[in-house]
Amino acid sequence: MDIARIEAAARRLQGHARVTPLLSSPFLDDIAGRRVLVKAECLQHTGSFKYRGARSAVSALPEDQRAGGVIAFSSGNHAQGVALAARQFGITAVIIMPADAPRLKIDNTRALGAEVVLYDRATEDRDAIGARLSEDRNLTLIKPFDDPEVIAGQGTCGLEIATQAAERGITHADVIVCCGGGGLTSGIALALEAKAPGLRVHTAEPEGFDDVARSLASGRIERNARSAGGLCDAIVTPQPGNLTFPIMARLCGPGFVVTDDEAQMAMAQAFSRLKLVVEPGGAVALAAALYHGDALNNDTVIVTLSGGNVDQSVFTAALDRFGEN
Amino acid sequence: MDIARIEAAARRLQGHARVTPLLSSPFLDDIAGRRVLVKAECLQHTGSFKYRGARSAVSALPEDQRAGGVIAFSSGNHAQGVALAARQFGITAVIIMPADAPRLKIDNTRALGAEVVLYDRATEDRDAIGARLSEDRNLTLIKPFDDPEVIAGQGTCGLEIATQAAERGITHADVIVCCGGGGLTSGIALALEAKAPGLRVHTAEPEGFDDVARSLASGRIERNARSAGGLCDAIVTPQPGNLTFPIMARLCGPGFVVTDDEAQMAMAQAFSRLKLVVEPGGAVALAAALYHGDALNNDTVIVTLSGGNVDQSVFTAALDRFGEN
Repeated sequence: MDIARIEAAARRLQGHARVTPLLSSPFLDDIAGRRVLVKAECLQHTGSFKYRGARSAVSALPEDQRAGGVIAFSSGNHAQGVALAARQFGITAVIIMPADAPRLKIDNTRALGAEVVLYDRATEDRDAIGARLSEDRNLTLIKPFDDPEVIAGQGTCGLEIATQAAERGITHADVIVCCGGGGLTSGIALALEAKAPGLRVHTAEPEGFDDVARSLASGRIERNARSAGGLCDAIVTPQPGNLTFPIMARLCGPGFVVTDDEAQMAMAQAFSRLKLVVEPGGAVALAAALYHGDALNNDTVIVTLSGGNVDQSVFTAALDRFGEN
Repeated sequence: MDIARIEAAARRLQGHARVTPLLSSPFLDDIAGRRVLVKAECLQHTGSFKYRGARSAVSALPEDQRAGGVIAFSSGNHAQGVALAARQFGITAVIIMPADAPRLKIDNTRALGAEVVLYDRATEDRDAIGARLSEDRNLTLIKPFDDPEVIAGQGTCGLEIATQAAERGITHADVIVCCGGGGLTSGIALALEAKAPGLRVHTAEPEGFDDVARSLASGRIERNARSAGGLCDAIVTPQPGNLTFPIMARLCGPGFVVTDDEAQMAMAQAFSRLKLVVEPGGAVALAAALYHGDALNNDTVIVTLSGGNVDQSVFTAALDRFGEN
């Protein structure tokens, strides 16, 4: 993995992925005690950064292989990213989702043109279903994070951060990234290493699922006790990736861990101060900047709002608990 | 009023006003039966387009006059725009607000550094209070819409629409603008006349407050029966402006009128499909595109989401009534 791969992904994404805005509010600056800049990936196509990596991976396939179609496992943002990328290339996308996934996410994935295959989490083996389908139908698996072209696609978000920081004259800042498997974090860290070396990346994770923070502290891959559940489910993975972890270990500072309450408080701030809809997992980096700023060194902190695909009931519950009126 | 004045305003706003993104969703295209592009002014500083006009007007004042400070009447978005613009120039801003304005809006205006003067709507004369304060303290009035430099500032939104449409290869489209006094509409219409003449502007207003649609139909300024009240209060004015109306009459097609229910439905769509927080008045143009598209001629419709300063209870009520889950 190097910057050339990210720049090649950026060329493939040009005119497809949105250049998302870097937003701010004096009210957030007051809470954090420093300048807060917010990279609004919830405004990316399909409502999360995942479209970048999906489009990067699908567009990097050899044409004859791509024509055979793609397959992905996902109950959420990666599914929608792969579905849209496949539709744009006019190819088949098969998405394997648990039968108990939210109906809205299943419907949205189908509406984006994907063929959704449901499985029973209790009785069926997802990987076996995927392997059989891939072989029978000659589909290429698009992994959610531990793939060089996916990391390169997420890294295009880092190229944009480097450019947008430079436009504002910012040479030094902390950059906090919402972290699941580490695709977005490692991609951004590689991009900033090359383009804005004074910008230091940190991860943010929800309490109870802090595998990356613990792995960064111990220097080796640590697993979560639980692999799912909790408010920030969408960004939870069992452990950091084999490709992503060495990149994060080399380039990232200590990881932040925030509570579910803090994630909800950050969602309420994004609503009232930024006019953005953010999902709980997508708000953990903002929560770290607002409520754990003591651990930061720079006058400026840049955070990713990584996605906005939140059920209405979850969103309004966060406002009811932590909103201002 | 001509394009040179708008371009001069754009130079003064450069690096201050945000270039807001032009967003889209395949789900909105499906509802409308055509391509829908959304100019997200809710992401502008202070949460609405009003900052553009306020900053334009304040920055256009002669330096010695500006140094004396500014005054504005507003219970909402114009207040915050003027307060922020004044703070950026380090000058006094006095905002005259009704004592029964929402506490949050009063607090926000104060937090942006403005001096808030409250008056009793039932017993006090707002204009007399303003005239006395202006004279005693040598403050310059910044009008909400019927001022050339305010119109020019709002017109910078139209310059951006022209550029963003051209980047997408769009030469012909309908453009629907949320319309109160007509500052944003007339500014955008002038900008598009000069820069993108194939883009045809229409107004959108809430039912019961359709003074502009009726004025456009009759060819002369018509008043609303009621001057306030209703869900879309923030964009309601008694009648179109003396400066803005002739511009709209010359350049705009027939006006759209949407129901409060349609505005709320558009808010719910902006939440789920665009990840944006939009106030009811700021959603009327999207509502017109989604639910009154029969009256449109082009394959592409561009709408302004003019603001996102909505009380939490109003926002969640719209989702509860018209959201998808």
